[in-house]
Amino acid sequence: MAVTFLQDETFESYSVRLSPFFKMKRENGIIEVRVHTHDGEALFGLEMHRAFAQMFRAVGADRQNEVMILTGTGDYWVRSVNKENSGEHGADAGHAPPFADFIYDTFHIDGTKIVEELIWNVNIPVIGAVNGPGFHAETVFLADITLCTPDTTFVEPHFTIGLVPGDGNYLILQELIGLKRANKAMFLGQPITAQQALEWGLVTDVVPREDLLDRAWAIARYFMQRPREVRALTTNVARQRWKNLFTREFAMHLSHEITAALIRPVSIEAQEEAVTGRSGYFEAT
Amino acid sequence: MAVTFLQDETFESYSVRLSPFFKMKRENGIIEVRVHTHDGEALFGLEMHRAFAQMFRAVGADRQNEVMILTGTGDYWVRSVNKENSGEHGADAGHAPPFADFIYDTFHIDGTKIVEELIWNVNIPVIGAVNGPGFHAETVFLADITLCTPDTTFVEPHFTIGLVPGDGNYLILQELIGLKRANKAMFLGQPITAQQALEWGLVTDVVPREDLLDRAWAIARYFMQRPREVRALTTNVARQRWKNLFTREFAMHLSHEITAALIRPVSIEAQEEAVTGRSGYFEAT
Amino acid sequence: MAVTFLQDETFESYSVRLSPFFKMKRENGIIEVRVHTHDGEALFGLEMHRAFAQMFRAVGADRQNEVMILTGTGDYWVRSVNKENSGEHGADAGHAPPFADFIYDTFHIDGTKIVEELIWNVNIPVIGAVNGPGFHAETVFLADITLCTPDTTFVEPHFTIGLVPGDGNYLILQELIGLKRANKAMFLGQPITAQQALEWGLVTDVVPREDLLDRAWAIARYFMQRPREVRALTTNVARQRWKNLFTREFAMHLSHEITAALIRPVSIEAQEEAVTGRSGYFEAT
Amino acid sequence: MAVTFLQDETFESYSVRLSPFFKMKRENGIIEVRVHTHDGEALFGLEMHRAFAQMFRAVGADRQNEVMILTGTGDYWVRSVNKENSGEHGADAGHAPPFADFIYDTFHIDGTKIVEELIWNVNIPVIGAVNGPGFHAETVFLADITLCTPDTTFVEPHFTIGLVPGDGNYLILQELIGLKRANKAMFLGQPITAQQALEWGLVTDVVPREDLLDRAWAIARYFMQRPREVRALTTNVARQRWKNLFTREFAMHLSHEITAALIRPVSIEAQEEAVTGRSGYFEAT
Amino acid sequence: MAVTFLQDETFESYSVRLSPFFKMKRENGIIEVRVHTHDGEALFGLEMHRAFAQMFRAVGADRQNEVMILTGTGDYWVRSVNKENSGEHGADAGHAPPFADFIYDTFHIDGTKIVEELIWNVNIPVIGAVNGPGFHAETVFLADITLCTPDTTFVEPHFTIGLVPGDGNYLILQELIGLKRANKAMFLGQPITAQQALEWGLVTDVVPREDLLDRAWAIARYFMQRPREVRALTTNVARQRWKNLFTREFAMHLSHEITAALIRPVSIEAQEEAVTGRSGYFEAT
Amino acid sequence: MAVTFLQDETFESYSVRLSPFFKMKRENGIIEVRVHTHDGEALFGLEMHRAFAQMFRAVGADRQNEVMILTGTGDYWVRSVNKENSGEHGADAGHAPPFADFIYDTFHIDGTKIVEELIWNVNIPVIGAVNGPGFHAETVFLADITLCTPDTTFVEPHFTIGLVPGDGNYLILQELIGLKRANKAMFLGQPITAQQALEWGLVTDVVPREDLLDRAWAIARYFMQRPREVRALTTNVARQRWKNLFTREFAMHLSHEITAALIRPVSIEAQEEAVTGRSGYFEAT
Repeated sequence: MAVTFLQDETFESYSVRLSPFFKMKRENGIIEVRVHTHDGEALFGLEMHRAFAQMFRAVGADRQNEVMILTGTGDYWVRSVNKENSGEHGADAGHAPPFADFIYDTFHIDGTKIVEELIWNVNIPVIGAVNGPGFHAETVFLADITLCTPDTTFVEPHFTIGLVPGDGNYLILQELIGLKRANKAMFLGQPITAQQALEWGLVTDVVPREDLLDRAWAIARYFMQRPREVRALTTNVARQRWKNLFTREFAMHLSHEITAALIRPVSIEAQEEAVTGRSGYFEAT
Repeated sequence: MAVTFLQDETFESYSVRLSPFFKMKRENGIIEVRVHTHDGEALFGLEMHRAFAQMFRAVGADRQNEVMILTGTGDYWVRSVNKENSGEHGADAGHAPPFADFIYDTFHIDGTKIVEELIWNVNIPVIGAVNGPGFHAETVFLADITLCTPDTTFVEPHFTIGLVPGDGNYLILQELIGLKRANKAMFLGQPITAQQALEWGLVTDVVPREDLLDRAWAIARYFMQRPREVRALTTNVARQRWKNLFTREFAMHLSHEITAALIRPVSIEAQEEAVTGRSGYFEAT
Repeated sequence: MAVTFLQDETFESYSVRLSPFFKMKRENGIIEVRVHTHDGEALFGLEMHRAFAQMFRAVGADRQNEVMILTGTGDYWVRSVNKENSGEHGADAGHAPPFADFIYDTFHIDGTKIVEELIWNVNIPVIGAVNGPGFHAETVFLADITLCTPDTTFVEPHFTIGLVPGDGNYLILQELIGLKRANKAMFLGQPITAQQALEWGLVTDVVPREDLLDRAWAIARYFMQRPREVRALTTNVARQRWKNLFTREFAMHLSHEITAALIRPVSIEAQEEAVTGRSGYFEAT
Repeated sequence: MAVTFLQDETFESYSVRLSPFFKMKRENGIIEVRVHTHDGEALFGLEMHRAFAQMFRAVGADRQNEVMILTGTGDYWVRSVNKENSGEHGADAGHAPPFADFIYDTFHIDGTKIVEELIWNVNIPVIGAVNGPGFHAETVFLADITLCTPDTTFVEPHFTIGLVPGDGNYLILQELIGLKRANKAMFLGQPITAQQALEWGLVTDVVPREDLLDRAWAIARYFMQRPREVRALTTNVARQRWKNLFTREFAMHLSHEITAALIRPVSIEAQEEAVTGRSGYFEAT
Repeated sequence: MAVTFLQDETFESYSVRLSPFFKMKRENGIIEVRVHTHDGEALFGLEMHRAFAQMFRAVGADRQNEVMILTGTGDYWVRSVNKENSGEHGADAGHAPPFADFIYDTFHIDGTKIVEELIWNVNIPVIGAVNGPGFHAETVFLADITLCTPDTTFVEPHFTIGLVPGDGNYLILQELIGLKRANKAMFLGQPITAQQALEWGLVTDVVPREDLLDRAWAIARYFMQRPREVRALTTNVARQRWKNLFTREFAMHLSHEITAALIRPVSIEAQEEAVTGRSGYFEAT
Repeated sequence: MAVTFLQDETFESYSVRLSPFFKMKRENGIIEVRVHTHDGEALFGLEMHRAFAQMFRAVGADRQNEVMILTGTGDYWVRSVNKENSGEHGADAGHAPPFADFIYDTFHIDGTKIVEELIWNVNIPVIGAVNGPGFHAETVFLADITLCTPDTTFVEPHFTIGLVPGDGNYLILQELIGLKRANKAMFLGQPITAQQALEWGLVTDVVPREDLLDRAWAIARYFMQRPREVRALTTNVARQRWKNLFTREFAMHLSHEITAALIRPVSIEAQEEAVTGRSGYFEAT
């Protein structure tokens, strides 16, 4: 009796296919995925947003991946918005996709899949290694272990720039740092320092930038000493609360963000530095 | 085509109607509601208990209210129990309403509505500005942003004085400071200082009394810079966890309190200072 | 000791205030509320949509109401859309409220409150007496006891006319008749007959039109033989599943409807008879 | 290495201890438990109420029980209330336990344990064989398989006699026959016939009285052909929805019943035949 | 500004890749997927089990699919077990994958993904067209609309052949036909006829085999008359209950099945006809 | 009228029966239960594992117990594994119970009951007095008040030694210290010091060993000043979140642990000191 399964896509295939957004390497079952833009610091845009979901789907479907490290390039997790090839903040909307597709495809579907594919389909331990400030940190927060550098700051800038915080980042903050701290970060736009993130249980460790990847790999190798099934089923157990939370509340959050964005275009001048927490927040005088 | 909606009650009407319990002012959509007794520090009683729910319903139904500030008068959020016009601790029960109505109307309905009207019907950001110690702080805990003065202490005195903690205050503590700290506060009656409240994520900021209202108004004005729909839908997103929690557990908590109070009249001499955390709690010798 | 509560609005006041939409009478604690348009069959529109929520709030807040009967006028629960004073399908949008207010105020807030005020604030047994076909039947489905006439048909026409079914009606169908039957009614737009409604547990009884109100009043009087607190707490117990369901899922449903309506204006010619189930649905050839 | 566990109570011990309320026999792992009063039809009372929980606990803790059959004696599941040795409807309250203990111990604890011990601690398939009409059928409804005789009627008489339906019976009806049918049975007190019970999914089969126990034993033997662990883990899977439902809602239901009973003594003359569905319900004239 | 997304796999690619298990065609956004074995009736095995998940993932990721029809080949949805290339019942275990991989990869991962990929990733309306008897019907039950032929029978054979029913089929039966009917089908192994399936709300319609695909396509075309976003968001609303249910309970069900299968190899001779409901079940003598 | 309840087991009986594992004393309703092995520090094994559940059942069923203190003997809560009379790590498996019984009875049933009996059946306040390091601390974490000595460390060693953390300890850590800290303790095996436990809300107080029992008794006596029903119903309210959490997730956790242990025998040499947190964990170099 031969057992002949249909093969899923190989590392060799998807690592090339996704290379415009992610550099990947794999050793002994440990896959390191590094987000980048032109091999420099990541600039976030519509394409990268979708590519995150596509990457999680490919990495998750390949059963030869056993532990994942997710990190960024240079001094920022995300340095800024990619004005070159993204219509997100829309100056050049004429060349963007048609309105309805834009909203449904890029806000609803991509906004849903970027977190769902990670939570439901990457059934292996994930180590987030946050190499510096930036927004859209929800993917590294959802990692099982999250390291960050001492200069990292985390921001929840939606409300600051006139949007509803529906992409999952605020939902994660509610769960990890509690409703009141999450509200202070979100309603008042205040950045969370690495030290606060550690004290409040938002990250696991603060590690100097020069040691960050070494630490992530050391942890990954420690994980690899356990049997594959123990690793995977432990991850399943650890993820169950995220699955509960996102199933129960995420679709409501995201559709509120989309509803509000359709009713009111962003009305406060989006300050570029809001995404790294250097401006835009409430300050007591 | 004319669209002619039935009008809801106006600020001019309810601000007068509720003035025995609350002083209100409104500027540019920001409504400040200050609880008081004879324009001094608030004394809690049956009437005030019900008036809180009535106030939340009126404020919530008026669509011209866009941000709410909830605060108290003088040096206490609540100074004490109002012996003059409340039957709550019942010395003068002969003049109180008939027993069944008393229990059902004042414990069950009013006890339910004081929190439900705030959570479900005040669909705008609420800033709690706690001006000093006092009990029945569940309403300001449910605010999206909660400021308190450095001398504020929070207490959960039900068990201390022989009641089951079913009015929502303990349920909120479980959510915001965790089960073990909530149990220490509740089972052992120990007051929570302003500094602990800040460290444990129960309040957003500790602010000197002289700056308290200025800070609340500054935050309210910061909120008003966002579009109305963004503000309201963000609040809806932020409240969803409270709605889940209260729907799932609150009726059970409250009916346990009422059951126990009916089976056993309060058996420990209610110490007046228990409500501001100055006596009655367990102390390790 | 005097106990002096702030008074809530009286029957004499709100029954007049709401009379353009509802005729009310009250005997011995039983309040009958009859929806109408110019004293004839109800035509649904934006104003009536909001008035339902306003009516439930007023009826629920008045503690002298002990059992509620909700019924319609003439041969239809709702006969059609009110083209005279409603902007809902928008031919005359120039005189309608500004776009953002229209969506947020009439879709989000009113769409939320019409069911929430009934479920959370009418804490007494409600008897729905459905006098004939019509849409927007979610309020009578949420009644504790629902009677209908033999010619009544129930429809879930949103998808049929190009909308997402997010107003609660489909959510109720899922709960009461199961996912597959609810999907057939919703995705294929097929009307549910009175007989099917009875067999599937959607209504309690089918009663000839001439006996409908007599039956409703007989049941109401039967209820009045139980003590007030037993009636109210029983209702609370009976409602708990609705509270769970609506807290968990309703905001997500409604915001999906609004999102879709903003992305795509209704694209299928809204057939007037779709609302009474006489046209528009899928038919196997 | 010897493994020496502490022994749990044996069949020989608990079958004697519980014999005033239950007759038991056991063959090849199948335990039949028959409720009785003086070896005749069961009369329900405080002692039997508690004994149900004690019986489930003993049967559940004995790992030699592998399938359980639960049935009654004679022509009634429960014939009536035991006036001889029960204080439940209290004519002779002077000899009953002190008030607080009565309420807490017999309503709250016993009322909780009668269902919890069955759901959580009898981790084996249970076959309910309902031999005729009677109330307090919640235990046989919770059985995995429920047979009843053609003359069986099921009633939910709490509201009929002036109580809140909080003992789990109504909660089970909501789950098994849907909210509207459950409301008709509960609010209007209408008995459910065996045929309706079958059509609505409340029982598995209707079986003539003379075949009832044979059928139950045949099913039990069919179950015994599966391995012990498969039987038990299947039961665990099948029970999970009951555990969810009872954890989420039962304490709220029960405490509402107790609250109401304390506020208002039963005010409608308890009709004895209400418990077998022969009187007391609403009838359309 | 150019927007350049990474492309997902095309219909031309995956329809070929998956053709050993599924024949696909697509017209105007409607994709028909027909399961087969050598172009005849489907024989279920390990490879097909995994291929279902792979197919749902590919179909779901391709945004050009707008409505999906899922059907089988010939007279059976699934005719039997594929003994040629499946190790499921293991006679030839020597050539099967290593034990740990077998269990983890084929039971846990594949068993999880077959339903999760459908529920979470096929975000378009799905019409199940069940062409005859067979087991593993959970995928067509999860379809939004389910048609079946008059000779179709549905079975839940796990317990019958000595397994715990953890693959989702029983969980779906609990939701759609209620706990008691689901228990009868599962514990007693009794087949559900097409007529019962219709009456109990398990299927939407019973359609003669010769009309089955025509009906499915007519419905699909009816769906295509609604805007893409309305279709998709309606599906999202309709699926929310399945997402809640599967997130909350499925991992527990499946791990119970695996646990039991590891503790006890299947001990009852697996009757081949059990999978089409022609033998193996409990019969009252 | 006499009320004659069947008696539950007396303190005199179960305190003797359980004395090989627990020393008990009782004064004025306060029961102290001290786990021991030969009157010295506790060695954990299969028998003790089961005995915990048996003890909670007996203590919980005796209504004369009103407050419970749970503590250990000597310098360790649990010193090590009992190699003498436990088959848990199996060197001497020949004398252990048959494989299927071993797994089902000792892992599934005992693993379920040790926490369920405490949460559901010990309906009185429980004070955990942790006298030193050790594993299997889930019972004292579930206590309403938890004291520990300054040298106590808490460990979650499952993953460290190659098991899935499914026994409830990790689930409790997720709830009490948050997902990220719980992951650090579990995935990296790092011990939690007494001081961290206090700061993170895992214990209520850190108390010198010589004062530990005095403090526990002082708190117990403080509790006894409240009426019995207030104490018990307050405990019910305080436990509700644990009941929700364990009902929703525990069976999934435990069955994942068992599945993994059956697929892969423990593959990392179990380091004895892992159970007291002195070795085995990840250390950054």
